[in-house]
Amino acid sequence: MDGDGASSTGATPSEEMNGTGNLMDFLDEPFPDVGTYEDFHTIDWLREKSRDTDRHRKITTKSKESYWELIKSLLDAWSGWVVMLLIGMLTGTLAGVIDLAVDWMTDLKEGVCLSAFYYSHEQCCWTSNETTFDDRDKCPQWQKWAELMTGHSEIKTILSGFIIRGYLGKWTLLIKTVTLVLAVSSGLSLGKEGPLVHVACCCGNLFCSLFSKYSKNEGKRREVLSAAAAAGVSVAFGAPIGGVLFSLEEVSYYFPLKTLWRSFFAALVAAFTLRAINPFGNSRLVLFYVEYHTPWYMAELVPFILLGVFGGLWGTLFIRGNIAWCRRRKTTLLGKYPVLEVIVITGITAVLAFPNPYTRRSTSELISELFNDCGALESSQLCDYVNNPNMSRPVDDIPDRPAGPGVYTALWQLALALIFKIVITIFTFGMKIPSGLFIPSMAVGAIAGRIVGIAVEQMAYHHHDWIIFKNWCRPGADCVTPGLYAMVGAAACLGGVTRMTVSLVVIMFELTGGLEYIVPLMAAAVTSKWVADAFGKEGIYESHIQLNGYPYLDVRDEFTHRTLATDVMRPRRSEPPLAVLTQDSTTVEDVETLIKDTDYNGFPVVVSRESERLIGFVQRRELTVAIKTARQKQDGVVSSSVVYFTEDNPQVAEACDPQPLKLRRILNLSPFTVTDHTPMETVVDIFRKLGLRQCLVTRSGRLLGIITKKDVLRHMAQMMNQDPESIMFN
Amino acid sequence: MDGDGASSTGATPSEEMNGTGNLMDFLDEPFPDVGTYEDFHTIDWLREKSRDTDRHRKITTKSKESYWELIKSLLDAWSGWVVMLLIGMLTGTLAGVIDLAVDWMTDLKEGVCLSAFYYSHEQCCWTSNETTFDDRDKCPQWQKWAELMTGHSEIKTILSGFIIRGYLGKWTLLIKTVTLVLAVSSGLSLGKEGPLVHVACCCGNLFCSLFSKYSKNEGKRREVLSAAAAAGVSVAFGAPIGGVLFSLEEVSYYFPLKTLWRSFFAALVAAFTLRAINPFGNSRLVLFYVEYHTPWYMAELVPFILLGVFGGLWGTLFIRGNIAWCRRRKTTLLGKYPVLEVIVITGITAVLAFPNPYTRRSTSELISELFNDCGALESSQLCDYVNNPNMSRPVDDIPDRPAGPGVYTALWQLALALIFKIVITIFTFGMKIPSGLFIPSMAVGAIAGRIVGIAVEQMAYHHHDWIIFKNWCRPGADCVTPGLYAMVGAAACLGGVTRMTVSLVVIMFELTGGLEYIVPLMAAAVTSKWVADAFGKEGIYESHIQLNGYPYLDVRDEFTHRTLATDVMRPRRSEPPLAVLTQDSTTVEDVETLIKDTDYNGFPVVVSRESERLIGFVQRRELTVAIKTARQKQDGVVSSSVVYFTEDNPQVAEACDPQPLKLRRILNLSPFTVTDHTPMETVVDIFRKLGLRQCLVTRSGRLLGIITKKDVLRHMAQMMNQDPESIMFN
Repeated sequence: MDGDGASSTGATPSEEMNGTGNLMDFLDEPFPDVGTYEDFHTIDWLREKSRDTDRHRKITTKSKESYWELIKSLLDAWSGWVVMLLIGMLTGTLAGVIDLAVDWMTDLKEGVCLSAFYYSHEQCCWTSNETTFDDRDKCPQWQKWAELMTGHSEIKTILSGFIIRGYLGKWTLLIKTVTLVLAVSSGLSLGKEGPLVHVACCCGNLFCSLFSKYSKNEGKRREVLSAAAAAGVSVAFGAPIGGVLFSLEEVSYYFPLKTLWRSFFAALVAAFTLRAINPFGNSRLVLFYVEYHTPWYMAELVPFILLGVFGGLWGTLFIRGNIAWCRRRKTTLLGKYPVLEVIVITGITAVLAFPNPYTRRSTSELISELFNDCGALESSQLCDYVNNPNMSRPVDDIPDRPAGPGVYTALWQLALALIFKIVITIFTFGMKIPSGLFIPSMAVGAIAGRIVGIAVEQMAYHHHDWIIFKNWCRPGADCVTPGLYAMVGAAACLGGVTRMTVSLVVIMFELTGGLEYIVPLMAAAVTSKWVADAFGKEGIYESHIQLNGYPYLDVRDEFTHRTLATDVMRPRRSEPPLAVLTQDSTTVEDVETLIKDTDYNGFPVVVSRESERLIGFVQRRELTVAIKTARQKQDGVVSSSVVYFTEDNPQVAEACDPQPLKLRRILNLSPFTVTDHTPMETVVDIFRKLGLRQCLVTRSGRLLGIITKKDVLRHMAQMMNQDPESIMFN
Repeated sequence: MDGDGASSTGATPSEEMNGTGNLMDFLDEPFPDVGTYEDFHTIDWLREKSRDTDRHRKITTKSKESYWELIKSLLDAWSGWVVMLLIGMLTGTLAGVIDLAVDWMTDLKEGVCLSAFYYSHEQCCWTSNETTFDDRDKCPQWQKWAELMTGHSEIKTILSGFIIRGYLGKWTLLIKTVTLVLAVSSGLSLGKEGPLVHVACCCGNLFCSLFSKYSKNEGKRREVLSAAAAAGVSVAFGAPIGGVLFSLEEVSYYFPLKTLWRSFFAALVAAFTLRAINPFGNSRLVLFYVEYHTPWYMAELVPFILLGVFGGLWGTLFIRGNIAWCRRRKTTLLGKYPVLEVIVITGITAVLAFPNPYTRRSTSELISELFNDCGALESSQLCDYVNNPNMSRPVDDIPDRPAGPGVYTALWQLALALIFKIVITIFTFGMKIPSGLFIPSMAVGAIAGRIVGIAVEQMAYHHHDWIIFKNWCRPGADCVTPGLYAMVGAAACLGGVTRMTVSLVVIMFELTGGLEYIVPLMAAAVTSKWVADAFGKEGIYESHIQLNGYPYLDVRDEFTHRTLATDVMRPRRSEPPLAVLTQDSTTVEDVETLIKDTDYNGFPVVVSRESERLIGFVQRRELTVAIKTARQKQDGVVSSSVVYFTEDNPQVAEACDPQPLKLRRILNLSPFTVTDHTPMETVVDIFRKLGLRQCLVTRSGRLLGIITKKDVLRHMAQMMNQDPESIMFN
């Protein structure tokens, strides 16, 4: 940490305003390493924010001194946009490269497997000796990468202010990019949006390190990562606005409006770069472009809402099943052999998927076909309708027709594909390979929707005299569009799993271009969320966060218990008293013993042990560094020196006493306090909204205890009858 | 206020957990009127939230007692959705009715005026004697309604937690609905989204009063109002998703994710109801449906960005001009004659708008025409191109053609219309009539965009050998779509005025259905915001809030000054000491004197005047009510009775002393405190995020002073070199 960031951290503003006291501070240069965090620790948002303001203020003041400083300050002001530009460009490029590589690999694979088509995908990998694509080469590699290959719950936790070192490094970026290509082209039931979010966040982290503004402030860095997540979704689907909303609704913890705006920019640049690379060969950003020729009718809301119910049930089933399986994986021997698991699942997928034409092809192609409206000239099996010989218009507006044998075959195959997709997705997500679940979820919904759509269509054709059809479906009219049902079903299933709402609908119509169908999409999304919420409030990402025990304080969890701060604070009644420092009677040795004996992140400073009146809070890390530096550089500081935090030199009893050590610089004079009577509900709210790391508890001005973010999380788990020790990383 | 809400307010949780002390509380029934706010006061979000949790907890506990209570609790849980449903339905219906009435009136007006077409609109009103539409009848009416007819800055302030009684009442709803019809059909340069947001909020307020959950909790009520605002925008434009985002980005202050979700539902229902009423006679929700036949090219980003710059400049000009005019209106005689002003502006509008065909028609029609692509058979003057005689395909994909005389005439007329619209909009917005500015802003941008578009098109046609055109514009190809430029210009101008970003783009493509043009729209919106921000950070709504001096703490204002809590807190050095109560040595008479002599909203309670150690905070209103009730109902409470806030009865010196009065019930034991060294930046953040009303300042546990929301606002105004007294409603 160089002088720029740290000196402004160490000095509290009051220090410089009130003068420096009667003793000059001995440290002109800042303490090294002050203001950083240990691995697996949570950050203090308020502190990060105020550090950034200090830095900003310093630059603004300096900028009036010379032109050079002015230019530097302008550069600093623009660095946020530059980072966004770079992230957008790199994410877009990587997404383009991944898309191209996946296409190439998929083609290659099919070329190899078609030559011996009775071999399954897996067998194909084992027998072919192609050097460029060889599962034997791929599979052993997974072992090394296994630890890196998780979902995107980690991103969410990091954004909430948790430090996981190496998770967003450049090696992760490289490995993730390569394995994503392999995983997507392998034909497993997974999507690419989760890994692309991770890749984008790695890019964000990479570019953060170029600017001290971001590399030195964990809070600012998380703003960039939020925006990068938006760029990731933007390129995964070509849905820039949906990406921003997804980042807002699902991923981000602490989302100032300015970030919304920057995310928007990053998502724009990423989408634009991807479009310039043009990996799909059409210049559309839209992934599954649809064009329907008939509007929808009020009565159709009934099947749409039923699809919503299905989506909700699927969401519940998926989350419960997947979490149960992942828990089993964590606790049993299974977790020991991630590579074997991947191979087995890939094998099963290949064997079971191959016979059915709807599971054999890539999931994106499947969704695309299911969404499509049947034109008159469509050759797909799904469009095998009995054409009316009297009618041979070549236009797209063809009336409802009876289904031909192809459609009935397709229905059976789709039903089997539905069951297969449901089961295999539950087992695939969460394996140690990069995986997203938008595409598999949408596939489940699209299959179900298309089946319902064909059923309604045939009903309307054969029974158009029924009351429900009479009003809107005359014989010879085109009234039901099965593709629309597939789209609605996809939205419902995606909503059931992720519990997205607004962003879901935006993503859906960015994906499909179907702006006229907001109401059906919304109706299905709302129903699906209601149904799924009735069985459990948590979406798949929160469930995985909880499963992994990350210290994530969910914004959506309502805390409604009647406990008070006094019930949660440490020390408990049976525990030893709180480790505190006094403002002017602790010696260097005492402090060193305290640091050695405890592992707290910081210590409150009180006037005296008798009065217990709080004056501030000092970070363990800064205390350690300050004492070490003083021992090395400052004459007269020995073990028996008194450490003092007041402005004035304490009255030394005898002249021969050693030189005291002034540490007011590192004292945080505005620690956050609540009274012991504060309801925990309010405390939780404060921790969430202000992003605190700890909070001191007082009564009538006396210090009673301390509550940390992890105490809060442990208490919440306890209140929900969960194992409080499931909060990992204590 | 009945027992349900108040009893849980009065009692702090600790009270019930720690037992009730050795003296029974005398008040079994709650104090009447506890927990409400005075007019023009700000609400305390944390308190409202904790009151709601208490209420919720009570209902949950009760629901286990009997089936009837269980049903009641279910009803309570669903009441939020019911309110949303009702709001959506009523807002949609009102919007439909308004649209129908506007159409009818506009037709009627035109019918009358066409009979004597040389009369201006205004003259027409004065001479015609039609009983159903007569400006003579309309104009005097304005006088009575004038006070109610403001913009939507008030909604924003109310949502931030400010009480303005009557602003959202049923009379306002009725009058606003009627006047909106009159104003929109009058042909003034105004849009209907502002008033429709107000109408929707009135609906929200109306339905809140049906459910005690919402009518008794100002925080919950604001959640409903946020959602109602979304429904308002949703029906103003038929843009439900844009409505939700608008409410999120622009209007709402305190927006939990649950509200996002409910807003979405309300917007859906409103849009759906409007569609069922179908006021425009087509079953489209989209206001200006466009369909372009050519993609856009990279090189076109240059004119798009130029349009963004124009949008930013327009935004700056409009905000400065409009605010200057509104300030003049407030400070000079002009403000005394709102009706005259409306008549004069309407007259000028009519006289100047009539000669030009582009200003004569309704603004929505104008925008619609400007957005349109010229088909081969288009008869509009804007589409008067010289057709290539060799080419007579009836398809829409026609190549670029040289402009005919009609286009050149149109260009001149458009340029004049642009100047006229710019000037008249500045003077119209903020008059005492219901007005929105989406439509006029979009019109300005659409005119400018169309002009630029035609210019680029003609350049590309005549100079297709220039390097910039060479790559993408072969002769005989259709490369430039002037309608797209109009759309981009409209987005840029709207963005410059409102500073919306994501919601702007979503609204634009919900309005036009043009999903393929996200990148141009985003580029223009980003540029426009940058340019406009360079001249001043505030959008038009914030500027009006500031002009009116509402106590609104903008989430976007960055506070970066180095002041500390001690610089802001009251009392200042020259002022008398803080009015405090002691925990067990104040008499009833002292309290009554204090209440009479001061007008503070509440008083801190300390252990004793010597130690100044804070134990809690008591609201003025609750104190008044409690003492009044005690004097009436409790025997032995006289002026010399000691008021005590401790759990134990204070030691009474002599036996003959009067009965003491225990008021611990109304004491808030968890007042919010910061230390005097806390940077104001942090304090501002805390006020914003937690929605506090006041905050106490301590040093080493001693009470030093108090900071209220208005102190914060006054300090911020001072720091920005504004008149601190411009914060009205002190």
